[in-house]
Amino acid sequence: MKTVHVELGERSYPIHIGAGLLGNTELYKSHIKGAKVVIITNETVAPLYLEEVKTALAPVAEVHPFVLQDGESHKRLSTVESIAGNMLSVPCDRKTTVVALGGGVVGDIAGFTAACYQRGIRFIQIPTTLLAQVDSSVGGKTGVNHSLGKNMIGAFHQPVCVIADSETLTSLPEREFCAGLAEVIKYGLIRDREFFEWLEGNIESLLQRDPNAVAYAVEQSCQNKATVVAEDETEAGIRAILNFGHTFGHAIETGLNYKDWLHGEAVAAGMVMAGELSVRLGLLSNQENQRIKPLLIKSKLPTSPPGNIDAKEFKSIMAVDKKAEAGKVKFIVLNQLGDAQVTSDYVDEILDSTLASFLG
Amino acid sequence: MKTVHVELGERSYPIHIGAGLLGNTELYKSHIKGAKVVIITNETVAPLYLEEVKTALAPVAEVHPFVLQDGESHKRLSTVESIAGNMLSVPCDRKTTVVALGGGVVGDIAGFTAACYQRGIRFIQIPTTLLAQVDSSVGGKTGVNHSLGKNMIGAFHQPVCVIADSETLTSLPEREFCAGLAEVIKYGLIRDREFFEWLEGNIESLLQRDPNAVAYAVEQSCQNKATVVAEDETEAGIRAILNFGHTFGHAIETGLNYKDWLHGEAVAAGMVMAGELSVRLGLLSNQENQRIKPLLIKSKLPTSPPGNIDAKEFKSIMAVDKKAEAGKVKFIVLNQLGDAQVTSDYVDEILDSTLASFLG
Repeated sequence: MKTVHVELGERSYPIHIGAGLLGNTELYKSHIKGAKVVIITNETVAPLYLEEVKTALAPVAEVHPFVLQDGESHKRLSTVESIAGNMLSVPCDRKTTVVALGGGVVGDIAGFTAACYQRGIRFIQIPTTLLAQVDSSVGGKTGVNHSLGKNMIGAFHQPVCVIADSETLTSLPEREFCAGLAEVIKYGLIRDREFFEWLEGNIESLLQRDPNAVAYAVEQSCQNKATVVAEDETEAGIRAILNFGHTFGHAIETGLNYKDWLHGEAVAAGMVMAGELSVRLGLLSNQENQRIKPLLIKSKLPTSPPGNIDAKEFKSIMAVDKKAEAGKVKFIVLNQLGDAQVTSDYVDEILDSTLASFLG
Repeated sequence: MKTVHVELGERSYPIHIGAGLLGNTELYKSHIKGAKVVIITNETVAPLYLEEVKTALAPVAEVHPFVLQDGESHKRLSTVESIAGNMLSVPCDRKTTVVALGGGVVGDIAGFTAACYQRGIRFIQIPTTLLAQVDSSVGGKTGVNHSLGKNMIGAFHQPVCVIADSETLTSLPEREFCAGLAEVIKYGLIRDREFFEWLEGNIESLLQRDPNAVAYAVEQSCQNKATVVAEDETEAGIRAILNFGHTFGHAIETGLNYKDWLHGEAVAAGMVMAGELSVRLGLLSNQENQRIKPLLIKSKLPTSPPGNIDAKEFKSIMAVDKKAEAGKVKFIVLNQLGDAQVTSDYVDEILDSTLASFLG
């Protein structure tokens, strides 16, 4: 087992990475204070891991599982209200611990429920997808979607512990595994050139889910994220670089009504677009930019946006991006592979020509 | 103008108390960072003060007012979702400031919306009721009700500034003004014997809304609250004493479905019940306890619960109180006038006999 620490003063917490961890009672013990635990999971994950987690928690607390329907379309305030209703019926008090067992959607909903149930209770993340293990379970961003925008209602609420069990990744459909790789590749691109080059050399082993390669990729990703989050917990500055590819990516997801494309797929296409913008802004060399697409293609990820969103729609969706300020959208751009910055210093024509190069 | 400071490190903020403050542009200037301000108010308050606040803010920012329907029944997640929808349509970015203009319900909804819109934006409280000026606008508790419990979904989110304009209290219906006095009296009871005795001597001037008496009562109340909140922002300990009378009071409100009784009225009856419990626990002397009711009666407040909630219902509602732990409800009790403590050290028979003494 490897452990990465997120250093946030009294809100610090460990990320445990390894095989067979979710059945380990000892890992939970020190993080559960009250008499009750609520496990929030979904109908896809429950048949695979719920029993094992329940059994592991049973010696520590009274366990109440709530199984949600699967899918991003349930990541809404109404789901939070319904979980809170279940918790009030138990009844769950302020010392209750929420356990999020599942992918990013489950983690975001469960985390936000924990953030606002009785004004905030403890929660543990057990991410079961690659995407959640390397990204959404770490850093305390929680929230739900609004019909007018993704993740627009939420809170910063750090978990007390993250348990990333690599065995859960063996059951992951290939498309989801590959979507997770988009975020893994992102860490290399924004701040870890060495890791990017390791990925170029080891992408085949990762795709074959070689346990050592996967564990290394998860650990490096979490370490990169933990370092950035420790520097800037609430995204007042540097943390924004974690959104590389996400401004374009969120526009793709919103334009498609959160359907058809997985988050990581949208981010992959978004990273290619952000790379192109970086080149057009004179920041990233063409030569370095050309190393991005091949790695994404090997990872079976899309490298351009879907054809049914036009430039005008892209721009109007991006205008409500959380990073927008006074109507000017901020972009994360690359200076070189492994070095990113946030910028709003661009003329609209450059953005227009970047969009035009993808949208015909 | 008097200013009370809430000392919370980087989350510290001033409470300005005085006449004619809400039209003072200077008071807002340093607290507004972005280009847009959203004023959240309701249909009762809007005709009275919205224009004046809009005019005061106009030199500082682009102003977007949202007028809610009046009443506690709108303090729900669906209202938060609808306000967020309006804000996304503007569109409002993360630098937007939310201004809560109204009583406790408006402050709670607006504050929670600010807490979770794009994971948290700035907000200013302009409380226009006595209850809100002395209690709910100070301390950062925000939230909405769930059909199964009051304030069960929420966040700690401190305002950047509170503007308590005493002129707004002149338009307040007498019943609401008196309900606010319940919280004023509470501060005397839990930690300020001198203030309690001042209230005993000056209750007539307060009821006549003598400007000096009202300003003094608001200032003393805010100072008491600010001191407690500075010691314990998230209610891990001592802050719980602010809930004196509220455990019984919330049960009354829930039992009545948040109808018929005002919050302060329920708290008044709850304080009498908590006083009685304190006597039965051998903590408060009978003689001191007998000074509580007369002050409440002079303040035109109820001193016993409504007849249509029985003891069993009281206990089952209190079991989901946020202060409950492992099924044992914690009560705030008085050792003497001006000295309170939190306790779960009681036998059920004492609680039963206390309830029986009120419920026949």
